[in-house]
Amino acid sequence: MYDITKRRTIRKYSDKKIDDRLLHSLLQRAEQTQTMGNLQLYSVVVNRTPEMKAKLAPAHFYQPMVEQAPVVLTFCADYNRCTKWCLERKATPGYDNFLSFLNAATDALLFCQTFCHLAEEEGLGLCFLGTTIYNAQQIIDALQLPRLVMPVATITLGWPDEDAPVSDRLPLEAIVHEETYTPYTTEAINAYYSIKESLEENKHFVEINNKETLAQVFTDCRYKAEDCRAISQQLVEVLKKQGFLY
Amino acid sequence: MYDITKRRTIRKYSDKKIDDRLLHSLLQRAEQTQTMGNLQLYSVVVNRTPEMKAKLAPAHFYQPMVEQAPVVLTFCADYNRCTKWCLERKATPGYDNFLSFLNAATDALLFCQTFCHLAEEEGLGLCFLGTTIYNAQQIIDALQLPRLVMPVATITLGWPDEDAPVSDRLPLEAIVHEETYTPYTTEAINAYYSIKESLEENKHFVEINNKETLAQVFTDCRYKAEDCRAISQQLVEVLKKQGFLY
Repeated sequence: MYDITKRRTIRKYSDKKIDDRLLHSLLQRAEQTQTMGNLQLYSVVVNRTPEMKAKLAPAHFYQPMVEQAPVVLTFCADYNRCTKWCLERKATPGYDNFLSFLNAATDALLFCQTFCHLAEEEGLGLCFLGTTIYNAQQIIDALQLPRLVMPVATITLGWPDEDAPVSDRLPLEAIVHEETYTPYTTEAINAYYSIKESLEENKHFVEINNKETLAQVFTDCRYKAEDCRAISQQLVEVLKKQGFLY
Repeated sequence: MYDITKRRTIRKYSDKKIDDRLLHSLLQRAEQTQTMGNLQLYSVVVNRTPEMKAKLAPAHFYQPMVEQAPVVLTFCADYNRCTKWCLERKATPGYDNFLSFLNAATDALLFCQTFCHLAEEEGLGLCFLGTTIYNAQQIIDALQLPRLVMPVATITLGWPDEDAPVSDRLPLEAIVHEETYTPYTTEAINAYYSIKESLEENKHFVEINNKETLAQVFTDCRYKAEDCRAISQQLVEVLKKQGFLY
């Protein structure tokens, strides 16, 4: 039986294909995820061909999983279909705004995560690519996404061909607040992050990056302020272009 | 065994309490959900007291589940904890921007959905409240959420005390695109939405709202353009106040 406490991200896949019926069955079952007003404000684009995976690769910084995985799925916030439905039914839709984007993004992410859970229960392995919103315009171009459609998540999917380790997580107290939000004291931060900071792999990570602390690896190397700001600007422009912001 | 094809939203709960150990075990297992850079950019606020549920009720338009459910969970995009960690570790964080909000919101929503799935597997029932981002400021005030924390989802949770129906969903072809996005033709829209439109409950819905089509119930009653626009403006202001937009 599937045990989520042993869940790992899988980046290497065997040559075994994913049967179409299995993929469709998983997507169809994931449709039972709760959705706003039962409108299902999402779409998923399925990529299997080497040509299309090669087109997506640069948007995901050429992470090798994109071209190696048998299937790449791009989950999109989608108000295009609903808007088209309204227009066909003498109704006047008004979903070209930021609230509607967040509602559709929520629908798409919940659907995506149910799909991930069901896929992992079947023994499939996957890697969730955080890069989707970093280069959204390239993905929009590659997948020909129209107005009121915005990619929000990508997963690479296949049968596992590696025995990846289970990642550490913060203790539960670090993420749970009872009744109201409790500000984090210095002592709390020290207690919650000490396990992570003492892991050999993280110490190694600090060393090879020539940093003093693990946090500096994140702020100075992985997620730099200037990059976050530049990409935020781009994101706002892409949301405008897709019709979700004025 | 849990069968997702029979999943229903549960709005009525029995008097039976939710054991703390069960709730914590579910939250802890949900922590294995994939998360950006293993940063876990989310927090969850647990509300059980009548006083706090009463404070949250207006933000959720007094939907009765909020005060009736034994537990209300508010899932938040949280860059506050990570930023505090960086500051304690001689690192200079730069996560007061829109990209960082979307990254943290993604983390929070994926975590939330894994939690929902695990809770339903245990036999618990839940209702996902779409209202969280409609009145975000009221929730921020009630839960005392600091800068760089933004509520993105709320669920009410309890042991089911109703036998709710399974909701209809669009046929799989309606949401899946092979290789590239296929524009929806009139014929496709008619085919995909006809089942939903022909359901007795939806016909009734059109009738009691005095409308001609089901789509008009959404555009004219449930999700009106002027409301969406006004709330979009508010949302942008709240994101600025919480430090995620300039």
